Amino acid sequence: MTIRVGIVGATGYAGEALLDILLRHPSAAVTGVYSRNENPRPFAEIFPRFKGRTGIICSRLDVKKIAEDTDVVFLSLPHTVSMELVPYLMKAGKKVIDLSADYRLHDLAVYQRFYNVKHTDARNVKQAVYGLPELYRAKIKTAGLIANPGCYPTAAILALFPLLALGVAEHSPLIIDAKSGVSGAGKKLTEEMMFSEVYDDFKAYKVNVHQHAPEINQELTRVSGKKTGVIFVPHLLPLARGILETIYLRSLPGQKRSTGSLVSLYKKFYKTEPFVRIKDAGSFPRLKETAGTNFCDIGIQADGADIIVISAIDNLIKGAAGQAVQNFNIMYGFPETTALL
Amino acid sequence: MTIRVGIVGATGYAGEALLDILLRHPSAAVTGVYSRNENPRPFAEIFPRFKGRTGIICSRLDVKKIAEDTDVVFLSLPHTVSMELVPYLMKAGKKVIDLSADYRLHDLAVYQRFYNVKHTDARNVKQAVYGLPELYRAKIKTAGLIANPGCYPTAAILALFPLLALGVAEHSPLIIDAKSGVSGAGKKLTEEMMFSEVYDDFKAYKVNVHQHAPEINQELTRVSGKKTGVIFVPHLLPLARGILETIYLRSLPGQKRSTGSLVSLYKKFYKTEPFVRIKDAGSFPRLKETAGTNFCDIGIQADGADIIVISAIDNLIKGAAGQAVQNFNIMYGFPETTALL
Amino acid sequence: MTIRVGIVGATGYAGEALLDILLRHPSAAVTGVYSRNENPRPFAEIFPRFKGRTGIICSRLDVKKIAEDTDVVFLSLPHTVSMELVPYLMKAGKKVIDLSADYRLHDLAVYQRFYNVKHTDARNVKQAVYGLPELYRAKIKTAGLIANPGCYPTAAILALFPLLALGVAEHSPLIIDAKSGVSGAGKKLTEEMMFSEVYDDFKAYKVNVHQHAPEINQELTRVSGKKTGVIFVPHLLPLARGILETIYLRSLPGQKRSTGSLVSLYKKFYKTEPFVRIKDAGSFPRLKETAGTNFCDIGIQADGADIIVISAIDNLIKGAAGQAVQNFNIMYGFPETTALL
Amino acid sequence: MTIRVGIVGATGYAGEALLDILLRHPSAAVTGVYSRNENPRPFAEIFPRFKGRTGIICSRLDVKKIAEDTDVVFLSLPHTVSMELVPYLMKAGKKVIDLSADYRLHDLAVYQRFYNVKHTDARNVKQAVYGLPELYRAKIKTAGLIANPGCYPTAAILALFPLLALGVAEHSPLIIDAKSGVSGAGKKLTEEMMFSEVYDDFKAYKVNVHQHAPEINQELTRVSGKKTGVIFVPHLLPLARGILETIYLRSLPGQKRSTGSLVSLYKKFYKTEPFVRIKDAGSFPRLKETAGTNFCDIGIQADGADIIVISAIDNLIKGAAGQAVQNFNIMYGFPETTALL
Repeated sequence: MTIRVGIVGATGYAGEALLDILLRHPSAAVTGVYSRNENPRPFAEIFPRFKGRTGIICSRLDVKKIAEDTDVVFLSLPHTVSMELVPYLMKAGKKVIDLSADYRLHDLAVYQRFYNVKHTDARNVKQAVYGLPELYRAKIKTAGLIANPGCYPTAAILALFPLLALGVAEHSPLIIDAKSGVSGAGKKLTEEMMFSEVYDDFKAYKVNVHQHAPEINQELTRVSGKKTGVIFVPHLLPLARGILETIYLRSLPGQKRSTGSLVSLYKKFYKTEPFVRIKDAGSFPRLKETAGTNFCDIGIQADGADIIVISAIDNLIKGAAGQAVQNFNIMYGFPETTALL
Repeated sequence: MTIRVGIVGATGYAGEALLDILLRHPSAAVTGVYSRNENPRPFAEIFPRFKGRTGIICSRLDVKKIAEDTDVVFLSLPHTVSMELVPYLMKAGKKVIDLSADYRLHDLAVYQRFYNVKHTDARNVKQAVYGLPELYRAKIKTAGLIANPGCYPTAAILALFPLLALGVAEHSPLIIDAKSGVSGAGKKLTEEMMFSEVYDDFKAYKVNVHQHAPEINQELTRVSGKKTGVIFVPHLLPLARGILETIYLRSLPGQKRSTGSLVSLYKKFYKTEPFVRIKDAGSFPRLKETAGTNFCDIGIQADGADIIVISAIDNLIKGAAGQAVQNFNIMYGFPETTALL
Repeated sequence: MTIRVGIVGATGYAGEALLDILLRHPSAAVTGVYSRNENPRPFAEIFPRFKGRTGIICSRLDVKKIAEDTDVVFLSLPHTVSMELVPYLMKAGKKVIDLSADYRLHDLAVYQRFYNVKHTDARNVKQAVYGLPELYRAKIKTAGLIANPGCYPTAAILALFPLLALGVAEHSPLIIDAKSGVSGAGKKLTEEMMFSEVYDDFKAYKVNVHQHAPEINQELTRVSGKKTGVIFVPHLLPLARGILETIYLRSLPGQKRSTGSLVSLYKKFYKTEPFVRIKDAGSFPRLKETAGTNFCDIGIQADGADIIVISAIDNLIKGAAGQAVQNFNIMYGFPETTALL
Repeated sequence: MTIRVGIVGATGYAGEALLDILLRHPSAAVTGVYSRNENPRPFAEIFPRFKGRTGIICSRLDVKKIAEDTDVVFLSLPHTVSMELVPYLMKAGKKVIDLSADYRLHDLAVYQRFYNVKHTDARNVKQAVYGLPELYRAKIKTAGLIANPGCYPTAAILALFPLLALGVAEHSPLIIDAKSGVSGAGKKLTEEMMFSEVYDDFKAYKVNVHQHAPEINQELTRVSGKKTGVIFVPHLLPLARGILETIYLRSLPGQKRSTGSLVSLYKKFYKTEPFVRIKDAGSFPRLKETAGTNFCDIGIQADGADIIVISAIDNLIKGAAGQAVQNFNIMYGFPETTALL
């Protein structure tokens, strides 16, 4: 069985990564690649590194054509643009995997506050499944619309999920000190993203006001059954790809554990997960080891009641395109690691 | 008045930075430059970037010669090597500014645990003054032996000093998420420090077991009057110079303040300090802005009882050589910023 | 048909890249992975990024075991080590793809001069086929021993091949200004390769005395029918992977051509090559576009009789592991691009 | 004697570097700092790294005010903007050191071709002195208008000057393979200069059509007495500062020399120059050794008639701001190295 796949927003970082992965997928045929800004021309003209691999044309966005040509559509668009397209695609009976934030937050007031825009498709928000396979694999199988998780939330939620789900740690405060490469910010021509600004520098930004904090709280609250309190400080690394989060929290009274015991707990918890790797005690994730992969690496250390969890992903793969394909594999019953190892 | 200055361990990063600064100092004459490993040869042969600036010879270490040629000695040596030299230099009546950790920790049992070696000069530890001018300026003026602070502790202590000294924040836990460039580790030929390992990577190391944690606790405990509890996780940045620390703590009950009020408090607290700069509310330090300078930049944000303090320094300047020269200026009554602006 | 494949020297950069590619090859089963230095342990323990992808054990080198377990052996060993193994493997009837320089140079005196060691396997040097598919595809098909080309020579020869083979350009001097990332030097623990040395730096090395110059001359001399005179200056880029060469030469009298005509000539010359991409006039290669791929990108510009050719490859793929697999595909009749697109 | 100095265009890279140097100059008082785009505000607000060093206001450009407040004006403006200001400043009797290209080229037709604009101040072009002290020190002493050399030309001319002036080498072709950090291009918000484009990449640009080629030819033609033929290919390095040029040329018949003899020739030629450093035979420049300095480092190697010269500078210091201050020192009779060592 070959599934006809479309990518909308293929000229962004995540879109490019999607095409990279899907071209290697034995059961996916990329039948359409679309951009809002480009006049129709070979994708390999825009991205010469694809020359010799694909002759596919990058077309102007055309909802009708997308509906005709594809079975499933990956939307790799800026926030607020996705929700203009999704209603049409859903109505046309297409499956949609949306990489934007538009369908992630259940509380539209929160969405509006953090993304500064009114949500226009409340109906589909209710139907969307948050596409983190480690939490929602069963629902993803039958979903029509996937809200693919944000990059920071993917690393944070996978790191905290076991401790909160098993009632080991306090639900607040959850201090998340996050560091990301520049591709996490998407392709925007801003002075901040100039080489001469980022190179040889390091800094925090959006200190405790980043739009990914409510997304993390939403999912961890669901998992823990209590309103979680995330303190979230992202930083900008002078490199292109990768997220590493160092997370500080405390065990609940009576739940104090050794590092070894926590490592065992995590290994058991994620035993059957193909893309979560738990580090042995005393060993911690590195960006390098997840770069270019769909893995999330996690290391844990306890010191009395204090717990430190460190997680790392490639923000464009497990934090975006790879996770989207993982969801695609689950939706269509393909082995979950297809095209991802 | 010209002071005759010697640098021992001039071929390390901090030693090189010391020479760089002292060559520009109008009241210092560098009369000797020493290394444990080099046969005598022009310093500019070892470091060609000094060619055309100085013809000074890098000599083999010779305590007698040092005592004859210099009034003050900067020791830029690995930990445990300094304490072999200091007793002789002190006996010879020299002033000593020691950049190693050997005279920083008052509790020798702690020193022994973290540096894995017995301390052999307990007597001078008692006399040494911790060379952080913002805390000990008066004592530095008359000191014979300066224990120049570690790089991580400099950024951490300056960031936390006001909140703890003024009784605004809780003394524990103080979560310090620190990020440093590679020069902080000194010049060691290890696989970990190869270009191919560090480039395009980011990782934590010595997670909550770093030897700078007790140094931070020692000074903050003195400041706060209560035993502080630091959680300290250092990370390695893929760049050469700079430290940025993101610090999480909580205000004491009844002491909750707004960001604006905390910023004012810091500005007032450090008003007369020439090398501490407080960021306006909403603005935070960047490595780039402190690189090559002796400044420590600090930004503060409050969110309810939660306080986030971010500080940045150049680890080789304010975190080592620059601070050493600042101490030198204080000891000899030169304007404190001489050769440092 | 599944071919049993062994990799000797799998813990070097090229060996690691080989495993990466061969794990994706549908007709190759990696049955053995060997290292001279490691005690037997899972390869994914040495390189954690392979965890979750392969459980293969990295064994101590054992020629007998290799002969039993594999049909073809990739040798990714330092120069001079390969020639100790090749005779045994050849005698055991194994096909060998050698990534070292040991079988590349026909003139053993030249080998001895540039690699500072006596050659001990002259017999097999004569039988070895230089594994540059674009020049020797027919011979590679039936070869028992492949001398996989050097990284610099791959980029240089592919860039100059058309002009010299067609008699368009002078055979001397051929000025090759080459720039490479650090992985080209292999994994050696030297001060030169420390992060603090390479970062933020750029320099030439082995100025016109590099061991790849005779390899380039050997092949270009064969192609042009005249002794070529290469001037070869390699430089070290502050990045991990990639080679870009800017080559200056002159057209023969009466052979002056426009840029457009030269571009056409190259496009025609390499029309059927799956891994050579010719840039349109006015456009030139970038490292980024070849990174992680088996492509060699080439741009050409003429200015009167002066010709500038710029070529780029990923030194670990087209310059080593990828080209080795391309040779493997040719030897076994698999589609040449298998596992390489 | 204190000279009142103004900097116009202080918010560009070279302008910022100028202020950095001039603040350390004991005989210069920076009385005005001007920008075309900024509303008046403290310079340290625009560039926070200057906070604590200077309280100077960055004013809107105002020719009258400049004339009143300053004795000498450094113009650090984009090409074509300088020539609008220079006539007024000259008429007001100010000395001008112009860092743009507007007064470098004697042949206005060439200027117009390479900078795509008509020159409007032919009169002052004739009076301008090309500010390369190693060639024109005597004229600089009495000059009213200095055309400060381009960064690429500085490294190229100093590298080739001895060989051409002494009639050792052929005047054509002079193949200059140049590599520069991104600051050479100035501060422009272009996609090409984004971190994600430059990082981990390397490429040639403006292949043999760069506007610095005619500047190099003009000066070398004057030196050699024959029309020189430069082939000039610049490349973009993934770092912020520094230029390294690898230059290929041939000795004249009968002038073949050994490497050692050429090194001696260069050392003798530049013996009294404070900012030119000649490498010993077998040793070559590195960006790191010139970074942050006003030095030009040069290495030479001969191979038969072929000569390779490698030169390196910091493009913002010896290639711009440092050289400008060197010219200032010469013009006012200060020791030439003041504020530059």
